[in-house]
Amino acid sequence: MAYERIQRESLGELATRALQSYGLDAESANLTSEILVLADMFGLHTHGVSRVQSYGERLLIGGINGQAEVRAERCSPAIGKVDGNNAIGPLVGQVALQQAMSQARETGVGAVFARASNHFGPVSPYSFLAAQQGFASFICSNASTTIAPWGGKEARLGNSPMGFGVPNPSGEPFLLDMALSVAARAKIRRALEAGTSIPETWATDRDGRPTSDPAQALKGFLLAIGGHKGYGLALAVDLFAGLLSDAAYLTHVQSWSENPEVPQNLGHFFLLIDTQRLGSAEWLGERMQDFAHILQSTPASDPQNPVIVPGGIELKKYRDALVYGVEVEAGVLEHLQQRAV
Amino acid sequence: MAYERIQRESLGELATRALQSYGLDAESANLTSEILVLADMFGLHTHGVSRVQSYGERLLIGGINGQAEVRAERCSPAIGKVDGNNAIGPLVGQVALQQAMSQARETGVGAVFARASNHFGPVSPYSFLAAQQGFASFICSNASTTIAPWGGKEARLGNSPMGFGVPNPSGEPFLLDMALSVAARAKIRRALEAGTSIPETWATDRDGRPTSDPAQALKGFLLAIGGHKGYGLALAVDLFAGLLSDAAYLTHVQSWSENPEVPQNLGHFFLLIDTQRLGSAEWLGERMQDFAHILQSTPASDPQNPVIVPGGIELKKYRDALVYGVEVEAGVLEHLQQRAV
Repeated sequence: MAYERIQRESLGELATRALQSYGLDAESANLTSEILVLADMFGLHTHGVSRVQSYGERLLIGGINGQAEVRAERCSPAIGKVDGNNAIGPLVGQVALQQAMSQARETGVGAVFARASNHFGPVSPYSFLAAQQGFASFICSNASTTIAPWGGKEARLGNSPMGFGVPNPSGEPFLLDMALSVAARAKIRRALEAGTSIPETWATDRDGRPTSDPAQALKGFLLAIGGHKGYGLALAVDLFAGLLSDAAYLTHVQSWSENPEVPQNLGHFFLLIDTQRLGSAEWLGERMQDFAHILQSTPASDPQNPVIVPGGIELKKYRDALVYGVEVEAGVLEHLQQRAV
Repeated sequence: MAYERIQRESLGELATRALQSYGLDAESANLTSEILVLADMFGLHTHGVSRVQSYGERLLIGGINGQAEVRAERCSPAIGKVDGNNAIGPLVGQVALQQAMSQARETGVGAVFARASNHFGPVSPYSFLAAQQGFASFICSNASTTIAPWGGKEARLGNSPMGFGVPNPSGEPFLLDMALSVAARAKIRRALEAGTSIPETWATDRDGRPTSDPAQALKGFLLAIGGHKGYGLALAVDLFAGLLSDAAYLTHVQSWSENPEVPQNLGHFFLLIDTQRLGSAEWLGERMQDFAHILQSTPASDPQNPVIVPGGIELKKYRDALVYGVEVEAGVLEHLQQRAV
């Protein structure tokens, strides 16, 4: 794939104008593009500005409402609710993040439940923005069904993304951003193309039996990490992000790909904790540096691959992007330029 | 193993008196035994009243301080801190739980960070007590080092337990309680005794390379679920439960087995959310019943093993224990009776 580099400000402006061409107002487009550009800066290109086109297609057919008003509400000093009214996902995510920050500044903790949303991009841009302001975070979203319950043979839960972030006043924050399947479907497709088998822990066939045959796996279901453990975690995410937020959950979540014109009613959960209430920046920075050092100094199984702290790869790419510009696929850039008239 | 059944009240009284014989006052012993008895009622016998003896041994040699005063403090309306002062773990856990409940009643959320603690038992008794009062929970603890960082060949993080709970006003709560390794060490020991191999995802040899040989695995390290994903989750738990709570973290955590006379300085994190701030009991109960029904009605891969909701097995045992008495191993009961003079 051919990548070009472009300054983050220019990319942000392009993405904003392209999103406006699909019916978003300037502020909504700007908040959305902030998340997508950060995703590209982290190297998460599948969740970056490439989404302008796929979000745009749903905006054009009314699957996402470009004019929706996202409403935030305080349920209690530390709990907030956001009704996305079927707005574009990263906009709902940004409003939820701001609401959680504002309540966490006041009470130490902000727990915000968002409903009536759509795909909100990756988790790490939100955790990163939170960490920059001194907030530790647990953020998650539900997703449309691709995973069968442990022991079942029908997809009834989503490969929900979840992430944790912890700020580091003396260096790099901890950023974990993961989905709950062992492997992505794309990886199984690549194995099929390459004619190789896959580990039995990745997926089941259509009868819910673990398989090493990628062709059978593609007819079946993704497996969650640790079998019943990942199944439980995916359910916990759906309960917090979907059920408690009054959004859809499990099979009630609409599929973006099968019914692109129907609102998904996805839900998100944002938990922010103000670390300044726990100790000084010096105290936290010292501990975070020591934490990273203990991990990074572990003797490596393969000396060519030293132990890393989650977020390290993404933050290295972020720093590179600041200096050299953001890498974007040529075709994606072209689409943005065509729309940003 | 021979099990006997005993009424929960009698078992609680026995465990309380046995704990008092190791130097705890009546109230501390009572709060501790409440957690251990619940563990046995859930069928989690390795974390139940069998621990009275092992906790007791550490109390006798000063590794745990039986007279410690556990102090709870409010850092902000929604954040609390607990200093365990090296008290027995379940007592620290109970104080943290109460503190989190009290703050969550007030602000909607209680996030409590506990330090200077010891092994606090399983997570599910705490989530269960929280759910009975209408609180959704995320609770976790760090642990002494048994897992190597992903790609490393030295144990530098613990097999930390974590759990989620969601109340169900119309039926059974959701209770997830899990550690982050694929399999427990005891399971690898059983494979060695049986002369069978183990899946390569369970553990590494001493050089950090995945192995299917149980003998090599026992010289090496447990693997976390989903490889780098479980590694990241175990770190997130250690950051919230250990680092942010001002407890020990990673290699700073003292090993109970190697240095039983030294305080461990374990840390715990308790997050409680008052679900009554989110909607009515009727609203929540209806959604929770529907959630369970969607899962339980999934066609099963093996019709003999229907799909279950996390917590279902433990809560079935709990109900049985209420009716028929709590199952306890004969030898454990004997120890309690000997101490409870």
